[in-house]
Amino acid sequence: MADEPTAAVLAANGAFYEAFELRDLRAMSQVWERSERVVCGHPGWPLLRGWREVARSFEQIFGTGEPLQFVLTDTAVEVVGDAAWVTLNENLLGGGVQGTVAATNVFVHENTGWRMVVHHGSPVGRSPDDDA
Amino acid sequence: MADEPTAAVLAANGAFYEAFELRDLRAMSQVWERSERVVCGHPGWPLLRGWREVARSFEQIFGTGEPLQFVLTDTAVEVVGDAAWVTLNENLLGGGVQGTVAATNVFVHENTGWRMVVHHGSPVGRSPDDDA
Repeated sequence: MADEPTAAVLAANGAFYEAFELRDLRAMSQVWERSERVVCGHPGWPLLRGWREVARSFEQIFGTGEPLQFVLTDTAVEVVGDAAWVTLNENLLGGGVQGTVAATNVFVHENTGWRMVVHHGSPVGRSPDDDA
Repeated sequence: MADEPTAAVLAANGAFYEAFELRDLRAMSQVWERSERVVCGHPGWPLLRGWREVARSFEQIFGTGEPLQFVLTDTAVEVVGDAAWVTLNENLLGGGVQGTVAATNVFVHENTGWRMVVHHGSPVGRSPDDDA
C-alpha cells in the first residue's frame, strides 16, 4: 500500500483538507484540476460542475461561519494507472458544525502531480431506512 | 464523448440501476467487482467496505419497502485508462421515497468488462448552510 503513487495521492488528499481548514482558496485551486470536468458535491448540495462553480462554492463556504477542522478516519486509497480515489470519513469539529461526512475524492495524475477531479461528501448518521 | 469506453461505462452504470430497480442481487453482484476494495455509501449510511458488506446492504434494501425507480439526470462520464467515474442525479420514485440523490460511481476495467468499485450517494436538497 505504501508505494509511491499511493503516498502521492494521500498527500494530494491531505492538501485538500489543509486548504479547507485554512480557508485558502489559492491553495484549494492548486489541489484541483481547474477544468470543466471537475465535480463537487458538498453534503446536501447538488453536484457542482466545472472549476468555476466549484471555486465559487469554496469562496462561499470560506466566507461564512467559523473555520472547520477535519479529523480524517477510515481512509482508503486505490490507484489504477493515472486515476485514483480516496474514501474516508471527515469528522468535523468547529464552526458549530459537528458530525461525520463520508467522502469520495477522485484524483487524476497529470504532469505536475495528482489533481482532484471529484469531491463528494455526504452526511452520515441518519437511519438507513430514511433513504434507499 | 460517445467513444467505445464511454459507452461501455455508461452501460455498466445502467446495469447498476437496472439491478437496483429489479431488486436482483445476482445481477447486482455482476455489476460490482467482488473484492475487498469496493466501497458503497448509501444516502445517510456510513461507508461500507468490501463486497460482503456491500452485498448485505443490497440484500437489506431489496428486502424492505417497495421497489424504487430511478430517473437519471445530469449524467457525466470520464474515462482515464482503466478507471472511470460517472456522476449523476438519481431522481427517486416509488416506495414512499421521493427526492434526488447525487451519486458518484467509480468503475475499473477488467478482463470481463467494467466493474463498479465505488457507489456513493448523498441526498440533495437541504440548505447549503446545514453543512460545510
